[in-house]
Amino acid sequence: MTMTKRDTYTPESLLAVAVGVFNERGYDGTSMEHLSRAAGISKSSIYHHVRGKEELLRLAISRALDGLFAVLDEPGAREGRAVERLEHVTRRTAEVLMAELPYVTLLLRVRGNTGTERWAMERRREFDQRVAALLKQAAADGDLREDVDARLATRLLFGMINSIAEWYRPDGGGAAERERVADAVVLLAFGGLRTT
Amino acid sequence: MTMTKRDTYTPESLLAVAVGVFNERGYDGTSMEHLSRAAGISKSSIYHHVRGKEELLRLAISRALDGLFAVLDEPGAREGRAVERLEHVTRRTAEVLMAELPYVTLLLRVRGNTGTERWAMERRREFDQRVAALLKQAAADGDLREDVDARLATRLLFGMINSIAEWYRPDGGGAAERERVADAVVLLAFGGLRTT
Repeated sequence: MTMTKRDTYTPESLLAVAVGVFNERGYDGTSMEHLSRAAGISKSSIYHHVRGKEELLRLAISRALDGLFAVLDEPGAREGRAVERLEHVTRRTAEVLMAELPYVTLLLRVRGNTGTERWAMERRREFDQRVAALLKQAAADGDLREDVDARLATRLLFGMINSIAEWYRPDGGGAAERERVADAVVLLAFGGLRTT
Repeated sequence: MTMTKRDTYTPESLLAVAVGVFNERGYDGTSMEHLSRAAGISKSSIYHHVRGKEELLRLAISRALDGLFAVLDEPGAREGRAVERLEHVTRRTAEVLMAELPYVTLLLRVRGNTGTERWAMERRREFDQRVAALLKQAAADGDLREDVDARLATRLLFGMINSIAEWYRPDGGGAAERERVADAVVLLAFGGLRTT
């Protein structure tokens, strides 16, 4: 008789458990023992799925990055005036953050102690630069105010979007709730709170 | 002969060392031994200044909270239309965050394991509620757009302000640099990025 349950995990369901443990304990603070206990299967069963915890980190981070980079390939991000494309990317980035909350949260917390973490930070910087370029183009088109520096505006825009991860909890509202939040981000960032 | 230096600390200079260690290791991960090593004085010398690490936490958090609550008592936060007061509070909150960066960073990271941490979270909530009330008043005056929910707008506004702590590093720019960043926050949040 064993205390561990039968291993019925798919790569995806095991990843969901791992990302939860990483976000709770921090990646550095998570051991294979912690993952084994959280999943309810032995360490050797986990090794049957992945080479180790760094591979789980890479898979989790990849899921977040794939979701974010896919936004840049959407028609709304590729066609039309830069300011419209920027609004689309802002809205969809916020939506992906909420739809893939644990994965994007992990990505945002990565600090760069391992090769995988440094790769994640590099890819995240690349995403930020793609958005910053869009913002610069929109400013050059005369569609954005000139009294806010592009670099600073990009930081504040991402700061606002990423802060959603601090408080957003999926409550069954689903896509409609995510859309409501993303709409507010776009209205505030592009239109401002003031009526006049 | 001793390895520790002579204790020439004032309460303020000891606090500056402690807040640095708390932000680097996390409050939970910091022992009196860590504080002693960082300060270069013995643990008993530290106990000469404070009762223990929780008192250092309380002093550091108090400094952040005192700075933030003082903003609400400034004339600009008390006189005039709610929307003008809200803009003043937004600008000054961002400036205090930058001027008191390590102390406010610590406040933002507090998670509530000790009595002092729970008190800090309660006081932070109180501050947020004071700002949320101002935002509701400005909306009732017709000065803020009605298509963004007040609760959501408050969260996004603080999300943007607090995100400054992630990247801002005092670089000798002093008050002028802090003013430039705070101006950008106000322009973006109230006027929006778009020219039209």
